[in-house]
Amino acid sequence: MASSSLNCETVALDDEAKEIIIIDQTKLPNDRRMLRLSLREEFYEAIYLLQVRGAPAIGVFAAFAIYLCACKADSSDFDSFYADFSKDRDYLNSSRPTAVNLSWALGRMDDVVRTHKDEPVPAVIEALKQEALLIRKEDEEACRAIGENALTLLKPGYGLLTHCNAGQLATSKYGTATAAMYLGHERGYGFHIYCDETRPLLQGARLTAYELAEAGMDVTLQCDNMVGALMASGKIDAVLVGCDRVAANGDTANKIGTSVVATLAKHYNIPFYVCGPMSTIDASIKSGADIPIEERKGSEVTAMWYERPMAPAGIKVFNPAFDVTDHELITAIITEQGVFTPPYDFRP
Amino acid sequence: MASSSLNCETVALDDEAKEIIIIDQTKLPNDRRMLRLSLREEFYEAIYLLQVRGAPAIGVFAAFAIYLCACKADSSDFDSFYADFSKDRDYLNSSRPTAVNLSWALGRMDDVVRTHKDEPVPAVIEALKQEALLIRKEDEEACRAIGENALTLLKPGYGLLTHCNAGQLATSKYGTATAAMYLGHERGYGFHIYCDETRPLLQGARLTAYELAEAGMDVTLQCDNMVGALMASGKIDAVLVGCDRVAANGDTANKIGTSVVATLAKHYNIPFYVCGPMSTIDASIKSGADIPIEERKGSEVTAMWYERPMAPAGIKVFNPAFDVTDHELITAIITEQGVFTPPYDFRP
Repeated sequence: MASSSLNCETVALDDEAKEIIIIDQTKLPNDRRMLRLSLREEFYEAIYLLQVRGAPAIGVFAAFAIYLCACKADSSDFDSFYADFSKDRDYLNSSRPTAVNLSWALGRMDDVVRTHKDEPVPAVIEALKQEALLIRKEDEEACRAIGENALTLLKPGYGLLTHCNAGQLATSKYGTATAAMYLGHERGYGFHIYCDETRPLLQGARLTAYELAEAGMDVTLQCDNMVGALMASGKIDAVLVGCDRVAANGDTANKIGTSVVATLAKHYNIPFYVCGPMSTIDASIKSGADIPIEERKGSEVTAMWYERPMAPAGIKVFNPAFDVTDHELITAIITEQGVFTPPYDFRP
Repeated sequence: MASSSLNCETVALDDEAKEIIIIDQTKLPNDRRMLRLSLREEFYEAIYLLQVRGAPAIGVFAAFAIYLCACKADSSDFDSFYADFSKDRDYLNSSRPTAVNLSWALGRMDDVVRTHKDEPVPAVIEALKQEALLIRKEDEEACRAIGENALTLLKPGYGLLTHCNAGQLATSKYGTATAAMYLGHERGYGFHIYCDETRPLLQGARLTAYELAEAGMDVTLQCDNMVGALMASGKIDAVLVGCDRVAANGDTANKIGTSVVATLAKHYNIPFYVCGPMSTIDASIKSGADIPIEERKGSEVTAMWYERPMAPAGIKVFNPAFDVTDHELITAIITEQGVFTPPYDFRP
């Protein structure tokens, strides 16, 4: 069910053609354009330009990408194979800084290479493929489990607010923040879903509203700054968002504006839930202050889709892609392993 | 100085041509198009379409508009003159519901007519013109006084955040929220101004950033959902916003998103100041719950400037043009009469 609304996998591997197939998320909902990518520069660009986005999907994509890079190895010597692999790994890892799933997935792929270092290169490459497929499978299973866990906190008829896209398009399937919405929809919960449009790139309007409406849910769209009025109106019973990196103390980096929604939820006494796979938890980072925050080009703000100017020429722009939500604003963090409530302590 | 940055009055009267001249605010900053309006339907549309906007400017515009409508009177009989006047007054008054300055200015004009009811119609019309000019003059003076009062609360080098446009373009001159910025700029305060872009119609990006940058100030633009990250960064020392209607208890209706900024300011311990002339205070209304909130077309949200679709076709939209900021979130309300601090009590 969950994937049927889009009729495609978010990240698919065409192993024969040695290509990754994705839907170009920068063109939705106006154009439904599939991309077939095979070059390392295309992989990098797909992540940087947000053609593929969402922390879990970036992890899966990176695993497939590094596997396809490895397939191009022209050396049968492990050391020179691993030198090339490491270069590709570092290159892909530099495409975006905030979502930990990117380095996490590349780290898992690296472990596989080192574990198989005494085997012939083709066997290493085959092991990489299996690991990438496993990462995707685990992501699907994790999302479903997140949905089941989140659903225990929700009641039929609830008004649910979400920010940005932590949906199917951000994962292999189901999404994280949306998983309970999909499962609840299947089970007749009759949720009313409210999507923040999520400036500057409108992932909420273009992607979340799109995929949930396609799935047949009751969806309303609003601008980010309307959340105060929305919560004041009593229409929101719970907030569900995804995450790009969770620190050991529960501080959560997610799409810019998430901390605004969390602060409002606290003010209006509405539960605020962060949903993500365990792979998004970075126990090596003590608090949100240490999470690197990507700052992007001002033109994302001043010209909608880089086309029409909407601000005076040359104006300075503040454009962080993420913000950090203080753990004190988070009611619970929901992973495939369960519902974690304060005090959070994700140290290893 | 203040008006020089735009080189035009926000609302000008060409009495010979019987026209109001305004700059079309829906086209800024890309096109600087002046409009000359003479028909009642043009006046209505200018307000409804936001070609002229901002509570004080709407009041001044409405005063000129009803004066020009009165100039068209073809009757020398007072009763029939007043019947026509009343129709025009009600028609103009129905163009937008939230800003009280519209009905306030039309009410003052109505008082003038009734006060002069024993005089010949041409004398009534002349009195209307004088009253409209007085309303504009008072607005200019009030804005300057608001600026002086607000400036007593600010220090050189402050980072100041504002939302929407409560600038010159929203008033006759100086603006309300921006008046202290203009005065401080003249006096070398070296403020750093941060403008919320203010979705859906981007008055912050298109108008405030434009007019303050034209005046030579240090201006940075950000999306509305970036205010949490901005405040967390320590860059904001005070928030200054305008208002469309203030209830007797201090609850304030202003551009959608204002209550979001106020909630964040409280969370981050940053003073939040509402600036407006006394004419924006509606003592007849006890609390914000009774302020009528205009809901506008969903296409403002789903298609930037009504052109390019940015959301799935047919999606439901929540698009209130204003929200109400609870008086408990407001540090002070600054008018031409002084700085009012809690508890607010504007009852007559």
